[in-house]
Amino acid sequence: MNIDLIRAASDRLHGHIRRTPLLWSPLLDEIAGRRVLVKAECLQLTGSFKARGGWSAVSALDTETRARGVLAYSSGNHAQGVAFAARQHGVPAVIVMPSDAPAPKIEGTRALGGEVVLYERGSESREEIGDRLSAERGLTLIRPYDDLQVMAGQGTCGLEIAAQAAGMGIHEAEVLVCCGGGGLTSGVALALEADAPGMRVRPVEPEGFDDVARSLAAGVIARNDRLSGGLCDAILTPQPGQLTFPVMQRLCGPGVVVTEDEALRAMALAFRHLKLVAEPGGAVALAAALFHGDALAAGDVICTISGGNVETGLFARAIAMA
Amino acid sequence: MNIDLIRAASDRLHGHIRRTPLLWSPLLDEIAGRRVLVKAECLQLTGSFKARGGWSAVSALDTETRARGVLAYSSGNHAQGVAFAARQHGVPAVIVMPSDAPAPKIEGTRALGGEVVLYERGSESREEIGDRLSAERGLTLIRPYDDLQVMAGQGTCGLEIAAQAAGMGIHEAEVLVCCGGGGLTSGVALALEADAPGMRVRPVEPEGFDDVARSLAAGVIARNDRLSGGLCDAILTPQPGQLTFPVMQRLCGPGVVVTEDEALRAMALAFRHLKLVAEPGGAVALAAALFHGDALAAGDVICTISGGNVETGLFARAIAMA
Repeated sequence: MNIDLIRAASDRLHGHIRRTPLLWSPLLDEIAGRRVLVKAECLQLTGSFKARGGWSAVSALDTETRARGVLAYSSGNHAQGVAFAARQHGVPAVIVMPSDAPAPKIEGTRALGGEVVLYERGSESREEIGDRLSAERGLTLIRPYDDLQVMAGQGTCGLEIAAQAAGMGIHEAEVLVCCGGGGLTSGVALALEADAPGMRVRPVEPEGFDDVARSLAAGVIARNDRLSGGLCDAILTPQPGQLTFPVMQRLCGPGVVVTEDEALRAMALAFRHLKLVAEPGGAVALAAALFHGDALAAGDVICTISGGNVETGLFARAIAMA
Repeated sequence: MNIDLIRAASDRLHGHIRRTPLLWSPLLDEIAGRRVLVKAECLQLTGSFKARGGWSAVSALDTETRARGVLAYSSGNHAQGVAFAARQHGVPAVIVMPSDAPAPKIEGTRALGGEVVLYERGSESREEIGDRLSAERGLTLIRPYDDLQVMAGQGTCGLEIAAQAAGMGIHEAEVLVCCGGGGLTSGVALALEADAPGMRVRPVEPEGFDDVARSLAAGVIARNDRLSGGLCDAILTPQPGQLTFPVMQRLCGPGVVVTEDEALRAMALAFRHLKLVAEPGGAVALAAALFHGDALAAGDVICTISGGNVETGLFARAIAMA
């Protein structure tokens, strides 16, 4: 994995994937006691950064392979990213989703033309289902994070952060990234290593699902005890990826862990001060910026809001905390 | 009022006021049956386009006059725009607000350093209160829409629409603008006349407060019967402005009127498909794009989401309609 793959992905994404804004609010700065810049990936097409990786992977396939179609397993954001990319390329997409995925994510995937296959998160292996379907139908599996082209696509978010921050005169910052399997985190870290070497990436996870923070601390891959049950469905992965972990180990600072309550409060503050809709897993980095400043180096903070695909009831509950 | 004032305002705003994105969603396009582009002014600093006019007016004052401070009367968005601009210029701002303005707008104005003076919308005249305070304290009144520099500031939104649409290859469109006193509508219309003459502005108002639509139809200024009581507080003005109406009369197509229910449903769809927080008055143009396509010329539609300063309870009620 290297920066050239990310720059090539950026060329393929140009004109198809949104350059999302880097936003800030004077009132959020006051809460954090420092400048906080928000990379609003919830405004990305399909409502999360996953459209970048999906587009990168689908567009990197040779024409014949792509024409047979693609397959993905995902709790919802990768699903929508791959379904969108496939539809825009005019090829079929089969998406294996957990039966407890948020309804808007399942509906969104179907609305984008994806054929949805549901599975039980506790008792079935999405990898096994994916492998079987891809063998049966000649589909190409697009893994959610442990895939070079997916990592390269997510890395384009880092290229944008570097360029947008430089445009504001910012060259040093802690960059907080909402972290599941590490696709976005490792991609952004590689992009910043090349284009903003004064910035350091910090993975952020929810309490109880802090496999990356523990893996980084231990120097070896650690797993989560639970595989479901949290509010931050977008970033509940069993363990860091085989491809993503070495990158994070080389480039990232210690992980930051936030509570679900802090994620919900961050959603409320993003609603009030940024007019953005964040989902819980997409709000953990902002929560770290606002509520865990003591774990961060002094100075500016940049954080991703990585997605906004959230059920209305849960969102209403979160904003009532503002 | 002319395009040179808008271009000069654009120069003064550069680096201080956000260039907001022009967003779209494949699923909104499906609902509307055409391409719908959304100018996301809810992402503007202070949560609405009013920061443009506030900055334009405050920055246009000579240094001595500005140092004595500024005064505004506003239901909330103009208040925050002027308070923000004054604070960034290091001068005091006194804001006269109706006592029934949404709590987040009053709080937001205070948080931005504005001194808030409340009045009763039904029984007191905000103009009289404003005139008295400005005489007593040497403050300069910044009117919410009937002011050339305010109109020029709002017009910068139109310059951006023209440039961003051209970047997507779009040169003809119906441009739907949420309309209160007509500051944004007339400013955008003047900017598009110069930079995108193939586009036509259509003012959009809520049922019961359609003074601009009726004024345009009659060819003379008409007033609303009610002055309060609607959900779309941001755009409940008694009548079109003396400066804004002639511009709208010369450049705008017929007004479009939507129901409050349609505005709430548009808020729900902006939440779901764009991850944006819109307030009712800021959602009427999107409502027109989605639910009143028969009143529009065929082809692409561009609409403003002009603000997102909404109470949590009302927002929760709106998104439950999705």
